[in-house]
Amino acid sequence: VKGFVSLVGAGPGDPELLTRKALRRLSEADLVLYDALVAPEVLALAAGARRFPVGKRAGRHTVTQEGIHHAMVRAARRGLRVVRLKGGDPFVFGRGGEEALALKAARVPFEVVPGVSAAIAAPASASIPVTHRGLSSALVVLSGHAEEAWRPVVDSLAPHSATVVVLMGLAGRAALAAALVARGWRRSTPSAVVWSASRPDSASWRGPLSSLHKAEPGEALAGAPGTIVIGEVVSLAAALAPVVAEARAAQGGLR
Amino acid sequence: VKGFVSLVGAGPGDPELLTRKALRRLSEADLVLYDALVAPEVLALAAGARRFPVGKRAGRHTVTQEGIHHAMVRAARRGLRVVRLKGGDPFVFGRGGEEALALKAARVPFEVVPGVSAAIAAPASASIPVTHRGLSSALVVLSGHAEEAWRPVVDSLAPHSATVVVLMGLAGRAALAAALVARGWRRSTPSAVVWSASRPDSASWRGPLSSLHKAEPGEALAGAPGTIVIGEVVSLAAALAPVVAEARAAQGGLR
Repeated sequence: VKGFVSLVGAGPGDPELLTRKALRRLSEADLVLYDALVAPEVLALAAGARRFPVGKRAGRHTVTQEGIHHAMVRAARRGLRVVRLKGGDPFVFGRGGEEALALKAARVPFEVVPGVSAAIAAPASASIPVTHRGLSSALVVLSGHAEEAWRPVVDSLAPHSATVVVLMGLAGRAALAAALVARGWRRSTPSAVVWSASRPDSASWRGPLSSLHKAEPGEALAGAPGTIVIGEVVSLAAALAPVVAEARAAQGGLR
Repeated sequence: VKGFVSLVGAGPGDPELLTRKALRRLSEADLVLYDALVAPEVLALAAGARRFPVGKRAGRHTVTQEGIHHAMVRAARRGLRVVRLKGGDPFVFGRGGEEALALKAARVPFEVVPGVSAAIAAPASASIPVTHRGLSSALVVLSGHAEEAWRPVVDSLAPHSATVVVLMGLAGRAALAAALVARGWRRSTPSAVVWSASRPDSASWRGPLSSLHKAEPGEALAGAPGTIVIGEVVSLAAALAPVVAEARAAQGGLR
């Protein structure tokens, strides 16, 4: 096989949060197979490549997982430099491991290029540090996509022993909050939802865990995916957010 | 205050895993205050800046946390563009929250630039995806620095319900493994330690949880910090590693 596949993390959305390596791979790519959530400004960096969407949005697949494997392998066998571009990091709920195994089975050379994960950057984009001395020294990252995936963790983890970040969990947020309260988390536990993290249209909601089901991003982002953050660190957002806003204004020439 | 402070994540080590924004901030900086673990090749990208080490190594601080706050504030008041450069991500055990609060108290404009966290990139550098369908759909990130920080999580979390990644935990790895086994984790649970992740001298160890205390990186990296990974996903390393090695050889002109 003469071609090469890079499984690349695109980060949380802001094209400035791409890694240098991701930028290099995009600029040299012949073919980019991208997830639905990758920002258009990121895709535009692969100016010389043919670009195809293969991701799913709101549960609807445009291409099956096997179809993605097949497309990567076929392109690599034709000698192409392929970038498989994923939101965040390829190994955090990104099916990067499955795609890597499929490439290995087909003897296609590949690499994994880590990206900035939304699990950390989405809270940061709402001025929430996932760890903070005295408030939280542990981070739990869950997928909210299927309840059986988060249940064993939520039902066992000692209340208030970690910051809990849930990706793809908006649809099930009422059940998640109820399970945490049933486990002993205070109903007043500071909670947040961040939509479109690190993007110009970013929005966030903050409130007590018991009100998480009410979190809505406003009309423009209705139905958009969001990242849930639960834990005392969310209370820092109020202290840090105004400075960030001032800083943005003060930045001037800085991007 | 005319100056500006960027709290920047330097990623896991490889300068190619810096974000574009981090690179921009480094190239425009007047002053860089960096942690001991930041790679020399990353620092070299701040060619026009004065550069001072302020981090701690193996528990020995070169500058106190208050001293770091003071230095950032003083430089910003003199109108300098300051980069506070941290390994990984500023908000994952990086004291970014504390430094942000200090800057806010002094009314210094600042921003946080997320980085690729070693919690995800160190396992990836040893061909271990932190999540994988059928093996793990949750990630727990702990600091091993102080036992009271990880105890409540380790003593409560249901065995085998998540991938456990421990940063700064090598010194206490025997106690950690014992606590997990006492909680009901199988002694055979696949485990790994990754040293110098994403760097040319990277090394890793793999074995059962019950042997974690024996993990050693070899003489060149003796005493170096390492990232611990515990969970079934570690078993994928064997399947993925050879292809990664082949891929490196096949890469040719690619970096």
